[in-house]
Amino acid sequence: MTTPPVHEHLAPLAFLLGTWRGGGRGDYPTIEGFQYTEEITFGHVGKPFLTYLQKTWNTDGDPLHTEFGYVRPAGEGGIELVLAQPTGVTETHSGVLMGRHIELATVAVGLTPTAKEVTSVRRVLDVDGEVLRYRLDMAAVGREEQFHLEAELHKQ
Amino acid sequence: MTTPPVHEHLAPLAFLLGTWRGGGRGDYPTIEGFQYTEEITFGHVGKPFLTYLQKTWNTDGDPLHTEFGYVRPAGEGGIELVLAQPTGVTETHSGVLMGRHIELATVAVGLTPTAKEVTSVRRVLDVDGEVLRYRLDMAAVGREEQFHLEAELHKQ
Repeated sequence: MTTPPVHEHLAPLAFLLGTWRGGGRGDYPTIEGFQYTEEITFGHVGKPFLTYLQKTWNTDGDPLHTEFGYVRPAGEGGIELVLAQPTGVTETHSGVLMGRHIELATVAVGLTPTAKEVTSVRRVLDVDGEVLRYRLDMAAVGREEQFHLEAELHKQ
Repeated sequence: MTTPPVHEHLAPLAFLLGTWRGGGRGDYPTIEGFQYTEEITFGHVGKPFLTYLQKTWNTDGDPLHTEFGYVRPAGEGGIELVLAQPTGVTETHSGVLMGRHIELATVAVGLTPTAKEVTSVRRVLDVDGEVLRYRLDMAAVGREEQFHLEAELHKQ
């Protein structure tokens, strides 16, 4: 299998393609603050969407979180993200792409009966050269939307 | 990286693990009936969930659909599934596991602004020896829940 060329609709998002590694920190009123290492890979299969695979580890190197989804260009300056998490959560996002700055907010969060209650998620992502930074705000377990995660990753 | 042992909570779902290949057919009042080939892989990473990757191709061998998600055991006889699709759709399912028979129905469907309207999805899956069969019913684009897909796959 040879890799097909990047779909023309993905040109504005091609800066994301590849594997990024780095570290971040998380916090929330209901938990203790923590640090993590992270790897994110954006891939493509020749169709007009990116695949998104994320994995984190705690400071002992144990797997922490993972999520998988798809990024879709949506017209001029529009961007969409859908993702699933093994914690029983799905996120459906709509947002804007301005150069290498992405702002996404959930239009829907899906929860299985045993999942922890998440109400909304906001994801802001910037790429500056070989550095990717993001911040994730979340409303969950009865708290209003606020800081949950931020990280800085480097292109591999 | 060595593969960790299967998490003890996954024992009732271990029959799904591996790669399955076969073919199916699809239909819906709003489209022409079609046939497809399919590959499904259930994997694990040592944690109490399965990964689920599905790919289909049309009869010319062109990629058709793909989806990715996680299967979670949920107490005695309970099962949950979350998945994302590059069409801008997320599905959040809850259901039951009876031996090697699985019945899942959506508790939530998430749609990005540019996604086609899907209201509900029902997935029934059976494994009999080396054969996996499933049927998918869907309510979409204003139609009530009805047959959309069925396929028969063989363990590779």
